[in-house]
Amino acid sequence: MAPHETSIDSKATNRQSVDLIVFAAHVIPVIPRDVILSDYAIVITNSRIIALLPHDEAVSRFVGMEERHLFNHIVMPGLVNLHTHSAMTLLRGLADDKALCDWLVQDIWPTENAFIGPEFVKVGTTHAVAEMLRCGTTCCNDMYFFPDDVCSVLEETGFRGVVGQIIMEFPGPYGSGPDNIFAKAQPNLKKYAPGCHDLITVTMAPHAPYTVSDKNLQRANALAKEYKARMHIHLHETTSECCDSEMLNRQSMNCHQSDQKLRPLANLKRMGLLSEHLICAHMTQLTKDEMDDVAEAGAHVAHCPSSNLKLASGIAPIAEMIKRGVNVGIGTDGAASNNSLDMFGEMKLAAILAKVQTLQSSSLPAVEVLQMATLNGARALGLEKDIGSIEVGKRADVIAVECDNIEMIPMYNAISHIVYVAGREHVSDVWINGKHLLDNHKLTTIDEAQVKKSVREWAVKIAAHREQQKSLQ
Amino acid sequence: MAPHETSIDSKATNRQSVDLIVFAAHVIPVIPRDVILSDYAIVITNSRIIALLPHDEAVSRFVGMEERHLFNHIVMPGLVNLHTHSAMTLLRGLADDKALCDWLVQDIWPTENAFIGPEFVKVGTTHAVAEMLRCGTTCCNDMYFFPDDVCSVLEETGFRGVVGQIIMEFPGPYGSGPDNIFAKAQPNLKKYAPGCHDLITVTMAPHAPYTVSDKNLQRANALAKEYKARMHIHLHETTSECCDSEMLNRQSMNCHQSDQKLRPLANLKRMGLLSEHLICAHMTQLTKDEMDDVAEAGAHVAHCPSSNLKLASGIAPIAEMIKRGVNVGIGTDGAASNNSLDMFGEMKLAAILAKVQTLQSSSLPAVEVLQMATLNGARALGLEKDIGSIEVGKRADVIAVECDNIEMIPMYNAISHIVYVAGREHVSDVWINGKHLLDNHKLTTIDEAQVKKSVREWAVKIAAHREQQKSLQ
Repeated sequence: MAPHETSIDSKATNRQSVDLIVFAAHVIPVIPRDVILSDYAIVITNSRIIALLPHDEAVSRFVGMEERHLFNHIVMPGLVNLHTHSAMTLLRGLADDKALCDWLVQDIWPTENAFIGPEFVKVGTTHAVAEMLRCGTTCCNDMYFFPDDVCSVLEETGFRGVVGQIIMEFPGPYGSGPDNIFAKAQPNLKKYAPGCHDLITVTMAPHAPYTVSDKNLQRANALAKEYKARMHIHLHETTSECCDSEMLNRQSMNCHQSDQKLRPLANLKRMGLLSEHLICAHMTQLTKDEMDDVAEAGAHVAHCPSSNLKLASGIAPIAEMIKRGVNVGIGTDGAASNNSLDMFGEMKLAAILAKVQTLQSSSLPAVEVLQMATLNGARALGLEKDIGSIEVGKRADVIAVECDNIEMIPMYNAISHIVYVAGREHVSDVWINGKHLLDNHKLTTIDEAQVKKSVREWAVKIAAHREQQKSLQ
Repeated sequence: MAPHETSIDSKATNRQSVDLIVFAAHVIPVIPRDVILSDYAIVITNSRIIALLPHDEAVSRFVGMEERHLFNHIVMPGLVNLHTHSAMTLLRGLADDKALCDWLVQDIWPTENAFIGPEFVKVGTTHAVAEMLRCGTTCCNDMYFFPDDVCSVLEETGFRGVVGQIIMEFPGPYGSGPDNIFAKAQPNLKKYAPGCHDLITVTMAPHAPYTVSDKNLQRANALAKEYKARMHIHLHETTSECCDSEMLNRQSMNCHQSDQKLRPLANLKRMGLLSEHLICAHMTQLTKDEMDDVAEAGAHVAHCPSSNLKLASGIAPIAEMIKRGVNVGIGTDGAASNNSLDMFGEMKLAAILAKVQTLQSSSLPAVEVLQMATLNGARALGLEKDIGSIEVGKRADVIAVECDNIEMIPMYNAISHIVYVAGREHVSDVWINGKHLLDNHKLTTIDEAQVKKSVREWAVKIAAHREQQKSLQ
């Protein structure tokens, strides 16, 4: 035994034993804002962060059952994907270069109606979790059918999720109608109420004003309130949704189901749904007065720039929203409209899009965008006490991003590098609740080969069905 | 020896021996447009593509000194980066969230003046070539100082480049003034005239109307004509450049150096510079009449969406330009304003940005964007007979993109997947002139460790200098 080792061992007796110490070249804690800690360590035990301190101090005070040395890495809180439809990975790239309305009616809904069921959702969600982990996302706000199956995938894979109990007016493979799907939501609202589960909470997720009646929006809201759950809805995604609702143009599929001649946000406000419990996805169309309404109510916005651009929906005015006090997080939307679940891509796009929208290159600086993709998402989900930053007491949802690759060097500022330079491929390690789910680029709870095999099988069936449909037309 | 092998060997006697056969699951040739060839082979010898044919036919007709089986890949022409400043990788992320003018005057120019020289340019360009190869780019249109050193890096690394002979009005580290730098350009114009070198051609590259006088623009153009070289210029990058030139507002650093009260494009037209030899980078500000002028002249546009958004310059109206017949390619700009040399990111952004700009999600479909990033770039550079598509007779500038990763599956259409799904990290192999420069993600002509070491050394010096400058302020 070398003298050097003896000395460490003797010291060890005075050190506190912990589950894991992550030593990192750079830590971005997100809180405090705009801080980069160099040569720091994150000490984790019982799934939580118990210390954040300089490398040498960590060595002298703690001994980890496991110690990871990430000296070419930026370590930071996991990314929070504030709006997605996980299982739609199976429909990635099914139909591109089409308008939202045509895309839904001609491609997405017919395919979903032909295929979705528990098995589709399990395979698609597992695939999405694999992708999200590999891309540094540790929590998603999901909205899709068969939420029970989404929950079981999250439990199996150890991924953190907020699972939408979807509500739609019309019958489909998931349920015969609102009564039926409301009944299905209730057990999950109870089982996954805040504080009941380490990984999962739920939202009531009425799909959109154009697919859910006022009555069922109110019913969803009452249930959400009863179980302290959030509401998650598509809102003001397109101009047509807003204008056709205000005109009550029933010819348009984007017109809301209400009998009110109002923009959908105003109608939600009228019914008392605009509150701190509401997470509004998209919001590309928003007047300044509406922004003030959202801010005053404490409601949250999930900004999905790639999807909004790709479907030509519009550019959400998030710099102005943030100025007016709205809490804005970032989402990828589903892989069918993005076509990725890559939060790094969304961060960069959110930042540069806001600059050109405001014609101010200082708009939405990197530090703000990083907060949106972590802490603001956590806030929107009511999880800010547990996740969204590297702080003592929070859950250990932590990711490591390599910063010594050709594409990442040189690095003058780690925060702006995360937003403007880093790619999903630089994520090497992910912990959720202190559990190592991505270990040096390798998934630990998901059999990647099995996922690929299952995805391929589904894709063959879906492609064949589309060919058949085309031949019938 | 198995009977199976015997049979192949006996057949081999009738087969033509070639340098390389690339067998691929999918080949996107770009010409013809919107075609995906499955189970195909590209046959390469003496640096050129000599056949493109189905797998089995290739096996029966050719035998390769080397044969690569890429059965989980899309194989396609290498990407052409139509506007970059390669060596600026060393300034990646030096200053973000700033306006073009402040960023140039406060950050980029002072740092360049303190540091650039042959060694800076060699290290930075080698770094950029490493990044571009890893990201699937096989040709760049470069504009930077010390072009001799850029050329020597291209020769050493085997990368294809069109090297700008930069012209600026004011003295700097590269030259004492226009006469001096014009003199430096002449030998390169001769040495790298079209057809003289396998990898390198040159452009005259007057930086911009606001940094080069009318006299020197005309002088550059005359030289370019004499040596059959293109002209490469920043043009109509910002509103201020256009308005301040039209008003002849000399207080503005963006006002052109001309005495004409004209928008810069009109001034170039007036002087006879608007021709098929002109490559205009950026062009965010363009009236419909100006688009028609550009189209009629046969001039080319290098669309740089990330940089234009990040610097809040504007959104170039490329869908409209293309409709009016302008040849539009794609560029990353330098890594200091992007902050990457990632053509996959630019392709996706170009596509989705055009959709939101025109409010038509069918605008600029994937197939158009892929052509922009390959063939249109080649056309702009006058290299369309040699590169930009997988066609018999062209140089073998070929890349392979993995399509069986978690992020890439399922795949319903290889072309839309390249634009909307693939990332730089999926590029596994790159050939330029038939030479294997990236072999299963590994650079073959560049010592990656040495590049990293050199880049780190420069970054330390640059960061120290910036700290010192700040402390003096």
